[in-house]
Amino acid sequence: MTLIERACETLTTIRDSSPLVHNMTNVVVANTTANALLALGASPAMVDAPLEAPQLASVAGALVINLGTITPAQAEAMKLACEAAQQADVPWILDPVAVGPLTYRSNLARELLAFKPAVIRGNASEIMALAGLGTGGKGVDSTDSSETALDSAKSLAKETGAAVAVSGPTDYITDGTRTVTVKNGHDMMPAVTGLGCTATALIGAALAATKDPVEAAAFGLLYLGVAGEVAAKGAAGPASLQTDIINQLYHLNTKLIRERGNMGEL
Amino acid sequence: MTLIERACETLTTIRDSSPLVHNMTNVVVANTTANALLALGASPAMVDAPLEAPQLASVAGALVINLGTITPAQAEAMKLACEAAQQADVPWILDPVAVGPLTYRSNLARELLAFKPAVIRGNASEIMALAGLGTGGKGVDSTDSSETALDSAKSLAKETGAAVAVSGPTDYITDGTRTVTVKNGHDMMPAVTGLGCTATALIGAALAATKDPVEAAAFGLLYLGVAGEVAAKGAAGPASLQTDIINQLYHLNTKLIRERGNMGEL
Amino acid sequence: MTLIERACETLTTIRDSSPLVHNMTNVVVANTTANALLALGASPAMVDAPLEAPQLASVAGALVINLGTITPAQAEAMKLACEAAQQADVPWILDPVAVGPLTYRSNLARELLAFKPAVIRGNASEIMALAGLGTGGKGVDSTDSSETALDSAKSLAKETGAAVAVSGPTDYITDGTRTVTVKNGHDMMPAVTGLGCTATALIGAALAATKDPVEAAAFGLLYLGVAGEVAAKGAAGPASLQTDIINQLYHLNTKLIRERGNMGEL
Repeated sequence: MTLIERACETLTTIRDSSPLVHNMTNVVVANTTANALLALGASPAMVDAPLEAPQLASVAGALVINLGTITPAQAEAMKLACEAAQQADVPWILDPVAVGPLTYRSNLARELLAFKPAVIRGNASEIMALAGLGTGGKGVDSTDSSETALDSAKSLAKETGAAVAVSGPTDYITDGTRTVTVKNGHDMMPAVTGLGCTATALIGAALAATKDPVEAAAFGLLYLGVAGEVAAKGAAGPASLQTDIINQLYHLNTKLIRERGNMGEL
Repeated sequence: MTLIERACETLTTIRDSSPLVHNMTNVVVANTTANALLALGASPAMVDAPLEAPQLASVAGALVINLGTITPAQAEAMKLACEAAQQADVPWILDPVAVGPLTYRSNLARELLAFKPAVIRGNASEIMALAGLGTGGKGVDSTDSSETALDSAKSLAKETGAAVAVSGPTDYITDGTRTVTVKNGHDMMPAVTGLGCTATALIGAALAATKDPVEAAAFGLLYLGVAGEVAAKGAAGPASLQTDIINQLYHLNTKLIRERGNMGEL
Repeated sequence: MTLIERACETLTTIRDSSPLVHNMTNVVVANTTANALLALGASPAMVDAPLEAPQLASVAGALVINLGTITPAQAEAMKLACEAAQQADVPWILDPVAVGPLTYRSNLARELLAFKPAVIRGNASEIMALAGLGTGGKGVDSTDSSETALDSAKSLAKETGAAVAVSGPTDYITDGTRTVTVKNGHDMMPAVTGLGCTATALIGAALAATKDPVEAAAFGLLYLGVAGEVAAKGAAGPASLQTDIINQLYHLNTKLIRERGNMGEL
């Protein structure tokens, strides 16, 4: 079965099983993330309290950890939830937003790696910083290209055992040995806040439906890229694009994935 | 005067008096809730700090308590705000999001009942769990039908003195004796995150305009259902539906309510 | 060079330099604020943790402080960030949301003034309350007209050294001596939640691009007003207006500013 066919199969599994995806994410994207997951077919829940996050994480299909607007209370809850996920064999994904220039979250991200994420997804600057090979970007925005970060991604994958995904015009997903590329999307997408966070959440849904972390990461990026391409055709601007990407995730189907999906292996 | 006519009258009161609705809600729906309340004609304010939530609650037209993304600090502030509302005779409404599977918020919800909410609105699984007759749904999503929860709703209403509303394709609103049904809405609405939370907030606005909790709950659900039906006609997907429901709440009028409103009594 | 030409020049500078704008804001507008800043050409980052907010503030182009949904942890972080901004000569702007009726945030706002904001932007009731000459509005909504608040604005500007902007159908921006007016916008805009917060954030972007606080405040309000006018022409309601204002900020250009900009000096 080709990669594209497995991406189709995973979408069907998500739609059929509606996996519970536990999100501990930032306040900027909470609404769009929940709507994107619902549109794809998953059942999102946002739960951040230290006293209940581990309880939900241990029964979820996947756990999404996004450091975007981290607070001390949320950071404490994240550690407990990641530990609970690891103990319950629930796969989890780390989005190291703005790691690099900000010391507190950089240390937190390194600390969370001990709980063995299945996937790490970031932009080039974040992945390079987390791998110890860069100083990070400007705030939440990358100042490096995804190509530049591939070596860092491979190194980080080998160190952590996670599949590492670097988003950009070409997305690279690697476990240190195998590397998959996704070349979907549209150049207006970086003008929408937090689409990287959306990608991370969709990867969470895919992780709940397939046990291969490299493929789950590639499929999540593929779903978003295909939806983004279709949405961008008629978008009057980035806010309309944000809205229509969610509409297109709702309408996404195997026919569209086969027609537009642009995945390969290096 | 018929129920429909009283729903029209309450809408007019909201538009004329623009009641201050104090929301302590979740980060997923904060924006859509505020916009929905503004569109209906109310004056929303989101205030969560322990040192100021009780001050606002005591002068508001109604207080909305939504447990969606509860944190320890917000939980503490909620208790103080509910107590202040009760002392000032400000009606308040509880939305027990995801009560059942999550112990911490289940205990919090039971604790808040001591402050005598005027209305409790949830999905079937949440109401059954809060009544002690179910184990809850999958995360924030119901795994039971609204019909199934009617007995639990009546039992919870009798125990607490609140009007209890169960959302679903048919909404049931009961004080344990009288039961009102609302059959408006559209089947794409569950694909939009947090429309139940929107319903709860609109009920808050209605509570500030009419003192009958059963009717306030029915009218809030009716306003959302009618707006949702009109919006769904042209919606390109769930994100467009989310946007257009707010537009249609802005355009909602007594003519539309009379034409489309589908309320009855059991 | 006229004011309008300087507004054009500042927009071009924002687009060319993409300044990092650090936002400590409320959960209602976090998404729309980030998208509005991206659409204008800035690089927004939302960072609220006490251990990292000062680090980001000290390297940002501008810092935006918005008290909308203040929590104790965020308040502590704001003090540290404002102090860091002041020490690093990073200009910052205060949005005193709902100051007046709420004691806690009123005290916090007064306390933050010690760190010398470059700009304070609020509605009439907020500015009058912060100046000590009013009791504030109804929750987050003004109960006074912007004209009424002009004397308070001048007094507050002289007391604090900040440029003070009062939003309304006519916006007034003053340093106590010079007063600029902006008469753009549309009367559906108050039906969208948090457009005042958007204005404040856009002023932050302008502050990073021009060192004149009165002009930065006027230009931010101008950009929003022009985008709002264009967006309102086709808007099906307030939620569509919210979306299309961001689209129009993305398409905003010097030609539109010259055609529609309505700025003057009193």
